[in-house]
Amino acid sequence: MPFKQKMEDANKRTGSNIVLALDLPLNKPGKLLIKAKEILKAVHTHICAVKLNRHLILPLGLFGDVQSLIGQAEDYELPTIMDCKINDIGNTNQIIAEHYFKAGFDAVTANALVGWEDGLLPVFDIARQSNRGVLILVYMSHKGAWEGYGQKVFIHENGRNVSQYKIFAQKALKWKADGAVVGATYPKKIKEVNSILGEEVPIYSPGIGAQGGQIQKALENGAKYLIIGRTITLSKNPSSVARDLKLATQRSLSKGL
Amino acid sequence: MPFKQKMEDANKRTGSNIVLALDLPLNKPGKLLIKAKEILKAVHTHICAVKLNRHLILPLGLFGDVQSLIGQAEDYELPTIMDCKINDIGNTNQIIAEHYFKAGFDAVTANALVGWEDGLLPVFDIARQSNRGVLILVYMSHKGAWEGYGQKVFIHENGRNVSQYKIFAQKALKWKADGAVVGATYPKKIKEVNSILGEEVPIYSPGIGAQGGQIQKALENGAKYLIIGRTITLSKNPSSVARDLKLATQRSLSKGL
Repeated sequence: MPFKQKMEDANKRTGSNIVLALDLPLNKPGKLLIKAKEILKAVHTHICAVKLNRHLILPLGLFGDVQSLIGQAEDYELPTIMDCKINDIGNTNQIIAEHYFKAGFDAVTANALVGWEDGLLPVFDIARQSNRGVLILVYMSHKGAWEGYGQKVFIHENGRNVSQYKIFAQKALKWKADGAVVGATYPKKIKEVNSILGEEVPIYSPGIGAQGGQIQKALENGAKYLIIGRTITLSKNPSSVARDLKLATQRSLSKGL
Repeated sequence: MPFKQKMEDANKRTGSNIVLALDLPLNKPGKLLIKAKEILKAVHTHICAVKLNRHLILPLGLFGDVQSLIGQAEDYELPTIMDCKINDIGNTNQIIAEHYFKAGFDAVTANALVGWEDGLLPVFDIARQSNRGVLILVYMSHKGAWEGYGQKVFIHENGRNVSQYKIFAQKALKWKADGAVVGATYPKKIKEVNSILGEEVPIYSPGIGAQGGQIQKALENGAKYLIIGRTITLSKNPSSVARDLKLATQRSLSKGL
């Protein structure tokens, strides 16, 4: 089953559009693994997917303890996303994607700055061959995002200046990406990007909570999935926080967005 | 000793300005490690530093077998560079850099698109605190590099359009980066970037050989270090190829560049 469909199925089955960002602060590898497994167990009925980043990959090892986390997510039938933000030359991108897919991840994130030819083309090729997904960064959630993602790019063909994130959104559409990442901290940009992507490319929105983004605003402007990490992972009761977040998204969505 | 100085010392001691890109094709982890160690042993007197990428980090594990490779490089007094192309939000970038530095790497590469505030600032902070280095990608070596690195950016302050790579070069200078990466496949761009960076930020140039870049052209246009991978690692006799490359760079440099 293609990744996009897998996400929709998980969304329907769980009634949740929350992607858990299992990005834990620095700790000893043994403790990191125990903590990650505990949180995933506690919240798995309130989320529709799990996203990992280098917080766990580097200390635990992709083919080491990360395997048991991916296995746990598979047991819960939750798709897994590796937030590796691929941005190397084609040959290297291919090897990175092959490793993550071989390790069991269902999707990877990638940075469109690197371009298509000998850039992200090999990543999309491998993803298509194996029903995996590629999510394109369109506008990131941090304060400095304006500097690169917000810059204006001069388009030679028509003499116009177009925002970088709109160019990345157009590439996500053209390349048939399985998702576009737009920070919940910039709800107006979610709306602009959504008007480019329509139903074709779902928007994944990180930055809820710890970074200041709000659920209601992200959803009403067109985000389909909310990527939430620290609000859940650093709380004393991840299960109840995740449940409350799920209910909050359901309330927002039932208001007829 | 600061990373930039460490590189200069290694350059003087070895008489080489070649950074070995130990990026091996897919293989079983055990074979990868043996092959990597063999190549490093064979060529270590002909290179001034070692660069690793996800080719080895992902299958071997950063705190697994990669440790013995870093130790081997340290035994040869060769600085190590992790080509991770950092491009995440500040909190994550910090954790990525901390892991790589803790594992023993002397420097990391980073993508300036992510910006400064809550972007690369934490990476530079950690690097400065621990005498490690940060190399900024300015123009990559692959065919699709024109798409992002070659785009024109509209500068609101003066109404001009400036090439993305020149903006990245200016950031590398402003942020006091320890190096700037410009593909040897684009010698004219090395020259342009060098005219921005001067002596402040040395240029590291990948893309020699397998990708089509030429030693003489890269050096005469201002590259200080040449990053060479497949030409050495895929050859039948890495030692003699590395020695010949070192001699070729010495000949180029002795022509009074």
